[in-house]
Amino acid sequence: MADFLTKREDNYSQWYNDLVIKADLAENSAVRGCMVIKPYGYALWEKIQAQLDKMFKATGHVNAYFPLFIPKSFFSKEADHVEGFAKECAVVTHYRLKNDPDGKGVIVDPDAKLEEELIVRPTSETIIWNTYKNWIQSYRDLPILINQWANVVRWEMRTRLFLRTSEFLWQEGHTAHATKKEAEEETRLIIDLYSDFAQNYMGIPVLKGTKSESEKFAGAIETYAIEALMQDGKALQAGTSHFLGQNFARAFDVQFLDKTSKLEYVWSTSWGVSTRLIGAIIMAHADNNGLVLPPNLAPIQVVIIPIYKGNSELESINSAALEIKAELETKGISVKYDNRDTHKPGYKFAEYELKGVPVRLALGSRDIAGGTIELARRDTLTKEIVPRESIGSRIEDLLKEIQINIFNRALQFRDDNIYRVDTREQFLEQVEKGGFILAHWDGTAETEEKIKQETKATIRVIPLDSPEEEGKCVWSGNPSVRRVVFARAY
Amino acid sequence: MADFLTKREDNYSQWYNDLVIKADLAENSAVRGCMVIKPYGYALWEKIQAQLDKMFKATGHVNAYFPLFIPKSFFSKEADHVEGFAKECAVVTHYRLKNDPDGKGVIVDPDAKLEEELIVRPTSETIIWNTYKNWIQSYRDLPILINQWANVVRWEMRTRLFLRTSEFLWQEGHTAHATKKEAEEETRLIIDLYSDFAQNYMGIPVLKGTKSESEKFAGAIETYAIEALMQDGKALQAGTSHFLGQNFARAFDVQFLDKTSKLEYVWSTSWGVSTRLIGAIIMAHADNNGLVLPPNLAPIQVVIIPIYKGNSELESINSAALEIKAELETKGISVKYDNRDTHKPGYKFAEYELKGVPVRLALGSRDIAGGTIELARRDTLTKEIVPRESIGSRIEDLLKEIQINIFNRALQFRDDNIYRVDTREQFLEQVEKGGFILAHWDGTAETEEKIKQETKATIRVIPLDSPEEEGKCVWSGNPSVRRVVFARAY
Repeated sequence: MADFLTKREDNYSQWYNDLVIKADLAENSAVRGCMVIKPYGYALWEKIQAQLDKMFKATGHVNAYFPLFIPKSFFSKEADHVEGFAKECAVVTHYRLKNDPDGKGVIVDPDAKLEEELIVRPTSETIIWNTYKNWIQSYRDLPILINQWANVVRWEMRTRLFLRTSEFLWQEGHTAHATKKEAEEETRLIIDLYSDFAQNYMGIPVLKGTKSESEKFAGAIETYAIEALMQDGKALQAGTSHFLGQNFARAFDVQFLDKTSKLEYVWSTSWGVSTRLIGAIIMAHADNNGLVLPPNLAPIQVVIIPIYKGNSELESINSAALEIKAELETKGISVKYDNRDTHKPGYKFAEYELKGVPVRLALGSRDIAGGTIELARRDTLTKEIVPRESIGSRIEDLLKEIQINIFNRALQFRDDNIYRVDTREQFLEQVEKGGFILAHWDGTAETEEKIKQETKATIRVIPLDSPEEEGKCVWSGNPSVRRVVFARAY
Repeated sequence: MADFLTKREDNYSQWYNDLVIKADLAENSAVRGCMVIKPYGYALWEKIQAQLDKMFKATGHVNAYFPLFIPKSFFSKEADHVEGFAKECAVVTHYRLKNDPDGKGVIVDPDAKLEEELIVRPTSETIIWNTYKNWIQSYRDLPILINQWANVVRWEMRTRLFLRTSEFLWQEGHTAHATKKEAEEETRLIIDLYSDFAQNYMGIPVLKGTKSESEKFAGAIETYAIEALMQDGKALQAGTSHFLGQNFARAFDVQFLDKTSKLEYVWSTSWGVSTRLIGAIIMAHADNNGLVLPPNLAPIQVVIIPIYKGNSELESINSAALEIKAELETKGISVKYDNRDTHKPGYKFAEYELKGVPVRLALGSRDIAGGTIELARRDTLTKEIVPRESIGSRIEDLLKEIQINIFNRALQFRDDNIYRVDTREQFLEQVEKGGFILAHWDGTAETEEKIKQETKATIRVIPLDSPEEEGKCVWSGNPSVRRVVFARAY
């Protein structure tokens, strides 16, 4: 099975595409740029959703749902926002089809033209702030801490499964606050939450920081982001949290009476992560045998495969396997017992390696007689023999070990691939090799743009914890006070 | 608070609208026919989703996600389907906006016209069967048991919150089978599952049956439905499960090799319920004080309200309340403690009555000293005094009691409003009064249509368990072998 995969070292991009398809995560659809998320891929998304949703609710957020469509005029109300989003939108212009007079199929009914075109939401700030206007009169109505799980559409020209698709699934938080300080705190609370999720659930270390003026969200005062490093040395933005100041409140005229009865514009934030995270999980951990899923998000944590000859042998293995399955399930571990008789054990081993299942148990008659079980870890591809009576506790520990191990491996890789670079020549050389490049930058959009044009590298983040340090811009030679992180990115 | 509600007996329709708005479930949006589902309404939807999802998974189904957009040409492939759906669709014709040369906002870029228009899915049979074509070669690939949670759009002319909106949320199951028998069994499995959910979670009795030819799903061989009776005597279709035969497999050319190596078209089903169920819950149980939510789906099952004078008294109540809250939560009961100091207890009582919270506890210093708590049930509006030490077990029992009570009340109402009618005169009289009408029908679409035109009543279901009975059609006088259920419907 893994033979069908392009080797990671031969062609990383092809390896990724092969893996998404062959591990049954997703595929391209008949609609340009839109994907079908297959059951195994969707199960991974459900695990991501469930955990994030829990974390949002634990921090006081609630879910709601706003319309898919946004009136075209709403986009023009926030000047930067329209620049950033209106250019790549799906536009609904009609609301009816009719039979083709030629008798061949259906055509758009020209009599059913909308008075104002509707945009399929690329993000929901405008429709939400138009709604919040009616919900907010006084400081007593604040804060509003709402999240939405939804599909959004951005008409991307070049698409790749999970990483960049015309339609994708995401969550978008939209909060409203009485003070600037509170909104800023919310923005940072969320970027910390995302970082916690990336590190402790996805098993991916991230750099946390703010975006430069040209990379920030269209309509934001400040964008915080977490950036992860993929195995090919390219960066991937894994989540963003925006401090929007009073921009959208002004655009939609949302004012409130504060405690001193003064009329003030509302402060706001927005933040989101998407099905792109599945791409990050693949590219951070997978290998030439397939996916390596973090136990904390794996839809199947343990697979049990019977090794048998003939049906009578299978029957006794079945009962032992179901016993182990039940025992593990009481510990909250998700287990699949695969006793299909249409495939041989070797085929199944390869299949679950491809699908990245963290732990595999092979169960034969001799094992049952001997009171032992063979256990294989997906992350290290190593095996061990475990006494039957301790299988539950061993697997419980092992899932934690694997979670930590794949995080540490990714951390080691990331740390090995952060480069301090001080000259243009070093920069040009390193950018071809990949990795995060810590370099001085003069702080101007012009220099940033030149670097992007000539090297395809962008400023991924201005790290929150980077120390002040006198230096010279790696490109212009002008003075700089701190290093920023450059990389080529997905 | 309840004073703001129109009385149910004065204007049922206005009472419903008032309730949806004032109980903070949903509101109309700036986009015609599309609603904003507010946090409290969405929390109810989340409870519905969680329970149904569990039931789907327990019966072997998995979730996946298919594109929002469907190429126009797909619709023409199944003749009945296009007739049923193409007429009321949102159509995407362009993929870009540009700045208006007049400098005022943005306009649709005429250069960005799609070669083939895309329809925003009104239901996903066509895009899914176009996808299944690539997934199914042999009987080994079957069955496919997939469900999707998604938004869909049907351009309704007259909309009402939850009951009929241009965009709504739903789940749609799409299954593929090797045999007719298996597909038929799946269709019935799901209608039974929906019926179980309606009765045991929503607390609403339903009639189960099949639809007549003219009322069945566009593209189905047979449509099973559950029908509920609302308090105003109108019926509401609460879920449908369709046996699609080989219609979509033929339309999309999906064939498989069966066990005898013969090429066969695949058999299929589809089924769905939507945010409309929230409308059903409201209209089945609510009263002039507000919502009455079934405990099994209520986002808040118990609310605790402190009765106090001054802050020092509040503090001791706080600690008692949090202790009770924690105790109830260990039993899996969801509890809200509302100690806002901006509102008086009386206001809060009315608010949670309006929001339909099943159980309310009022907690004052005297109660704490006396070791008792006053408890109020939303369904009967009665109160009882309970010793502090038995509050946990009492509430656990009470939630079950309330669930049963509201079901029984709805059952009583439904059974009191089923009428056997044998003449056209009786039919005309009864249809004005409402209720389910059991009447003989000659089985022709002509008669059905005439009845609909003259009385606005439609055949809701042909009940599965209705006995054969010789009779004469209530309209045409022609012979009939069984009674069917007529009603005016939402």
